Amino acid sequence: MSNVNKVVLAYSGGLDTSVILKWLQDTYDSEVVTFTADIGQGEELDPARTKALQLGIKPENIFIDDLREEFVRDFVFPMFRCNAVYEGEYLLGTSIARPLIAKRQIEIAQQVGADTVSHGATGKGNDQVRFELGYYALEPGIKVIAPWREWDLLSRQKLLDYAEAAGIPVEMKHKQGGAPYSMDANLLHISYEGRHLEDPKAMAEESMWRWTVSPEEAPDAPELIDIEFRKGDPISINGEQLSPASMLERLNQLGGKHGIGRLDLVENRYVGMKSRGCYETPGGTILLKAHRGIESITLDREVAHLKDDLMPRYAALVYNGYWWSPERKALQVLIDHTQQHVNGWVRLKLYKGSVTTVARDSDNSLFDQEIATFDDDGGAYNQADAAGFIKLNALRMRIEGKLQRG
Amino acid sequence: MSNVNKVVLAYSGGLDTSVILKWLQDTYDSEVVTFTADIGQGEELDPARTKALQLGIKPENIFIDDLREEFVRDFVFPMFRCNAVYEGEYLLGTSIARPLIAKRQIEIAQQVGADTVSHGATGKGNDQVRFELGYYALEPGIKVIAPWREWDLLSRQKLLDYAEAAGIPVEMKHKQGGAPYSMDANLLHISYEGRHLEDPKAMAEESMWRWTVSPEEAPDAPELIDIEFRKGDPISINGEQLSPASMLERLNQLGGKHGIGRLDLVENRYVGMKSRGCYETPGGTILLKAHRGIESITLDREVAHLKDDLMPRYAALVYNGYWWSPERKALQVLIDHTQQHVNGWVRLKLYKGSVTTVARDSDNSLFDQEIATFDDDGGAYNQADAAGFIKLNALRMRIEGKLQRG
Amino acid sequence: MSNVNKVVLAYSGGLDTSVILKWLQDTYDSEVVTFTADIGQGEELDPARTKALQLGIKPENIFIDDLREEFVRDFVFPMFRCNAVYEGEYLLGTSIARPLIAKRQIEIAQQVGADTVSHGATGKGNDQVRFELGYYALEPGIKVIAPWREWDLLSRQKLLDYAEAAGIPVEMKHKQGGAPYSMDANLLHISYEGRHLEDPKAMAEESMWRWTVSPEEAPDAPELIDIEFRKGDPISINGEQLSPASMLERLNQLGGKHGIGRLDLVENRYVGMKSRGCYETPGGTILLKAHRGIESITLDREVAHLKDDLMPRYAALVYNGYWWSPERKALQVLIDHTQQHVNGWVRLKLYKGSVTTVARDSDNSLFDQEIATFDDDGGAYNQADAAGFIKLNALRMRIEGKLQRG
Amino acid sequence: MSNVNKVVLAYSGGLDTSVILKWLQDTYDSEVVTFTADIGQGEELDPARTKALQLGIKPENIFIDDLREEFVRDFVFPMFRCNAVYEGEYLLGTSIARPLIAKRQIEIAQQVGADTVSHGATGKGNDQVRFELGYYALEPGIKVIAPWREWDLLSRQKLLDYAEAAGIPVEMKHKQGGAPYSMDANLLHISYEGRHLEDPKAMAEESMWRWTVSPEEAPDAPELIDIEFRKGDPISINGEQLSPASMLERLNQLGGKHGIGRLDLVENRYVGMKSRGCYETPGGTILLKAHRGIESITLDREVAHLKDDLMPRYAALVYNGYWWSPERKALQVLIDHTQQHVNGWVRLKLYKGSVTTVARDSDNSLFDQEIATFDDDGGAYNQADAAGFIKLNALRMRIEGKLQRG
Repeated sequence: MSNVNKVVLAYSGGLDTSVILKWLQDTYDSEVVTFTADIGQGEELDPARTKALQLGIKPENIFIDDLREEFVRDFVFPMFRCNAVYEGEYLLGTSIARPLIAKRQIEIAQQVGADTVSHGATGKGNDQVRFELGYYALEPGIKVIAPWREWDLLSRQKLLDYAEAAGIPVEMKHKQGGAPYSMDANLLHISYEGRHLEDPKAMAEESMWRWTVSPEEAPDAPELIDIEFRKGDPISINGEQLSPASMLERLNQLGGKHGIGRLDLVENRYVGMKSRGCYETPGGTILLKAHRGIESITLDREVAHLKDDLMPRYAALVYNGYWWSPERKALQVLIDHTQQHVNGWVRLKLYKGSVTTVARDSDNSLFDQEIATFDDDGGAYNQADAAGFIKLNALRMRIEGKLQRG
Repeated sequence: MSNVNKVVLAYSGGLDTSVILKWLQDTYDSEVVTFTADIGQGEELDPARTKALQLGIKPENIFIDDLREEFVRDFVFPMFRCNAVYEGEYLLGTSIARPLIAKRQIEIAQQVGADTVSHGATGKGNDQVRFELGYYALEPGIKVIAPWREWDLLSRQKLLDYAEAAGIPVEMKHKQGGAPYSMDANLLHISYEGRHLEDPKAMAEESMWRWTVSPEEAPDAPELIDIEFRKGDPISINGEQLSPASMLERLNQLGGKHGIGRLDLVENRYVGMKSRGCYETPGGTILLKAHRGIESITLDREVAHLKDDLMPRYAALVYNGYWWSPERKALQVLIDHTQQHVNGWVRLKLYKGSVTTVARDSDNSLFDQEIATFDDDGGAYNQADAAGFIKLNALRMRIEGKLQRG
Repeated sequence: MSNVNKVVLAYSGGLDTSVILKWLQDTYDSEVVTFTADIGQGEELDPARTKALQLGIKPENIFIDDLREEFVRDFVFPMFRCNAVYEGEYLLGTSIARPLIAKRQIEIAQQVGADTVSHGATGKGNDQVRFELGYYALEPGIKVIAPWREWDLLSRQKLLDYAEAAGIPVEMKHKQGGAPYSMDANLLHISYEGRHLEDPKAMAEESMWRWTVSPEEAPDAPELIDIEFRKGDPISINGEQLSPASMLERLNQLGGKHGIGRLDLVENRYVGMKSRGCYETPGGTILLKAHRGIESITLDREVAHLKDDLMPRYAALVYNGYWWSPERKALQVLIDHTQQHVNGWVRLKLYKGSVTTVARDSDNSLFDQEIATFDDDGGAYNQADAAGFIKLNALRMRIEGKLQRG
Repeated sequence: MSNVNKVVLAYSGGLDTSVILKWLQDTYDSEVVTFTADIGQGEELDPARTKALQLGIKPENIFIDDLREEFVRDFVFPMFRCNAVYEGEYLLGTSIARPLIAKRQIEIAQQVGADTVSHGATGKGNDQVRFELGYYALEPGIKVIAPWREWDLLSRQKLLDYAEAAGIPVEMKHKQGGAPYSMDANLLHISYEGRHLEDPKAMAEESMWRWTVSPEEAPDAPELIDIEFRKGDPISINGEQLSPASMLERLNQLGGKHGIGRLDLVENRYVGMKSRGCYETPGGTILLKAHRGIESITLDREVAHLKDDLMPRYAALVYNGYWWSPERKALQVLIDHTQQHVNGWVRLKLYKGSVTTVARDSDNSLFDQEIATFDDDGGAYNQADAAGFIKLNALRMRIEGKLQRG
């Protein structure tokens, strides 16, 4: 075992990370610092403190932070400026939370003088990569312990046995087989993996979904909402100004109520395998639609296309864990620059699982009614120009066509 | 006026192209050949023949073709292999029909010895570009007459006056102000532009939509369908084999019934302005979702990402009218190559405006349950490998981080 | 003729723009303002003033500006930060000067209250596009007169006749057939087009080249130079600090002396045709090599690859005249961001037509000798990590391979 | 140690792979099959056989293949169709040979029933990745032994000691410190790394270069050569038809004689570090220039730009070892498709380190002299079309400009 002076553990308070906590103490004989963040996962944080104390963590080594505003303001919103979607469908809900946790964990390590960090992500998933790339980028000399890659507690039973032996309280649900899915939640989404989802041809059970009602159960009347944007970020709903986290919470409520944002997907993990996941991203699904709507009238065509061309690359960087990389930052600089005039409002219709744009306006609108009109436009646009435009754009093809028919 | 021996007109049988027909005869003193295609726009073609005869076109100069199978097989399906979406939302329903009409029009011109072709697209839109780039690519020496860019009948009233003077029958609806929207339809979609849609903040009227019921009026029970794919193209629904055109018709019925595929969009035209359009693409919306679903288990990750990276470029080429360009063909060669093993079926849920993937399977599935499982996988995947994977991927960031903190 | 109150002409003082000057006066009966810029084309500007006065331009309507520093600082250097090369070979010497001229011309139009600008570029080339896209972007309501697209002086003889009739002094060389090539020069390069170059299989004559000696005539001994960079721009040669324009002049002298920077190319014009051009870019050729050299040790790999991926797009934007477009600016923001730490020096060997990098160093070097060494590195890099790295990168291909061999 | 039945070793006959051979026998107690390929590295292969026999390899387990034609035809030429250059400068000489060796090694393993392959690449370089990604893609279940990542012979002295103990003949040069550089050669190039090159600011010694004379020593008279292409591949020089390998050999002779193709570079390795390498690619440097030349007159503009946009991605795939990946193959399909009409000849001038294109022609030339001419073109191109072309291309910028000065 390498030498470890002090280790900062990303600690949820749940069974797995409690076992890890104990295992770190046992295996490395090192002081453990726990870090628990509220990023909107919807769980009480106080039990995490209590449990940490029970497991022998000194009070000054317990860090519990409410990171919800920072999460939405500095991670979720910048990502949505890009309209980032991974593999055509996934809104990157898990991916975007990891860089923030890594950042805060490293800050704490620096503060308490820890040389090591640890997390509870498994050796098959993307999260280990996201955590650790963040750690290494932000603190190149940090040591990382990933217990799931090191220990031999690879079956559920071994884990429970270890917990009992270590005096970690095990809730009844774990003894009865544990959660039916592997779940992850934050203000942007909740995800489900594992168990019978591992068969891509098996349909998800209705009972699995937690954040959204089923479209069938959603209200029978549609709801219209107006979202206002400034510099590409949403700032108010129906005229009410909201902080970033409050904005996303409100959108989640609205989306959840109308059954919006469910996704059932087979995706390609960075570690090389395909995996099937189900996601609920109610607020994010609304936000993406709204953001595209406001961009549609405020962005120049070629800037919009440049963004569209770069989007899959940006999304893959976020998915793969490269938030703190210099290339993601370089792309962000470009994206943020394009959002200067992305101001205005978008009206959306929410109804039984779908969100549709129905109106939009902006003081920065590049939609020029005078030119776009089907009626005579009084000379703002000269239709004859189109002939020359087409002729020159066709020239190379005409030359080639002429050659080929000899 | 340039010398014109014979002109092939893309003729719908409607008022506008009838006026054009007459205007061509008057202005160019040339023989006119009419070409009317059934691409699934849902209108009878016989009246077009009758009208052409009435306007003095010789029977042998009237061409009426059913191009529906060719349209779907050689244009719609190849485009959907690419998952093409323009500006994040538009499924390119109008764009994809133009190249086929241009191709057939040029074939007829070659057959009848015409040196000129003509169409009824205006000077502000994309369709003139799409038609004419096709003409020039396929017959470099062709002459093109675009009446809307040449004549002075730019107001509705002038057009009606000309029609009456020319003895063209004018239906009552035209006298009463004409269609409330400028519409275009084919098997893939129907579009609406103009009139009060010209104000992007004005909501579309429910009465405008023609192909889909409103989600509110759609059945209260969801419907599950299975679509089977072979080499990236859909070949059967719920086990019933269907020809390409029949497949798209069936998907349109299903989508229309469930209120699927409405879109209200501000898009960027190739000629430089923004325009607002509303679209119904019921079958296409289902097909896109299904195709992504079957690709998700049959395409290699990096091939899928390569396709995603190239998609916006391909979509812009189609939108801008470059179907017959060498660069679109080169991209198509790549895309078609990737579809070799895109076989299998996808199950979709249709419900009140939304389509969601719920299951999928394939004999060519790259989803490896043994490796993806959360349980012990018996050594198929070595979790320890992830440590090295992460370490080397992080190396460049660590070196940079170390330098920057000096 | 449209109504023109005052027109600002990009005026070189040569025969063609003098005829344009006269033709504008004759045809539009409007006041003409001349603008002559020194961008390092290597010609005296005083004769332009004299000639303008002779042709009746009021002294206050004659603008002569030395734009050399601005040209290199704000146009050439930003472009070289991108390593921009069009179609694999062309360093964009003509393209990059046009936006500056357009900008200054519009500034003068605004200052003197002119509603129109004019230039001497032909209707077949790229320069008309570059000038006019600049005009329109910077002053959307400006009127543009492009005489070569309007008048009937399309043959050399007609032009000379017009000049003589208008009392414009015609030098003997013009009467004897004019320059053997169409040339354009500025601090970055000199270009040659036309005449017997119009046959791509005809070799250029040695006598054509003006800025560089032939490699055969270059010194028999190589010369080593050190170029220092700060934030991606060159700031000194062999320790001597130089202003941007002086830097490029010095590099031109060095390159010219050693026969560096000749290029004979068939390129694709934006207006749709191929054209053959010969270029001398002595300083730029050295600068490109040096900039790549300093980036090689100071840029992160993925940032460098992102730049390489975007480079052809940036180069095409510059070539096509989109310098003032929002998409070029967005790309520039990204590129400039990447140059923050591009500091250090590069040593180059200049010899008989070739420039090669032989050494480089930087305080911001990301080259880590400890890790790169072939000898035992004391644990800085763990070779065993590579096994996991390869295993996970291979995983998707193994799964696919396994499937395909059933 | 994992169980190994038989291992196919990529065997050069040199000291390192001889030690590996012995170490494999000692460590795995397994039968060793040696595979030695002639890919133009310029070394006799007979000694490899002799040595293998001496080391106890059975004659039927010794495979020696001349792969030169296959190497150039199926690997080098396809890559040059793409104009592949890594990081702006490197012609991928080492990268492109590895996939062929991996392929043949796997074929032999299948033939002799071996379950394992082995190679002599170190744990810090790219070659291990290139070999092993090839192995895994072509034979997913293969076992791989990479001795440099496993053993403890990490210093030169330990290696020599092991050799002596094992009775492996050690040449004098090894005892005296070995080659001054780590070298790799094949028909495309020879590379140098390590030793004092590990300091990027240290200049390479003239004595290092082996394949090219120094430009200073090259002939004082330039040489003109004509290269003919068919479908993007060179087929003759100065009228003499040559097989692929003979073609590259001839180009190497020509380039070597004229001091062409030296490169001194700091590059970014896939494993995360920067490294400095020197390369001689005489024939490849000529070929790249020639291929660009023939493409310049035979490729459509947008196809050429599409290729330029994809090139860095293709080059990175080859560099990183993904030759056998589905994404490289998909790109190759596109690239090969574009080369259908890339026929014709290019004339190049070779002189003291530089290669320049001076003329080119093709029966498939898209250069249209009638249109490109500066003189009156008899109506082939209508200059007035340019006005409309520019106006519509400027429209979006004018609308934006108007808004911003609102």
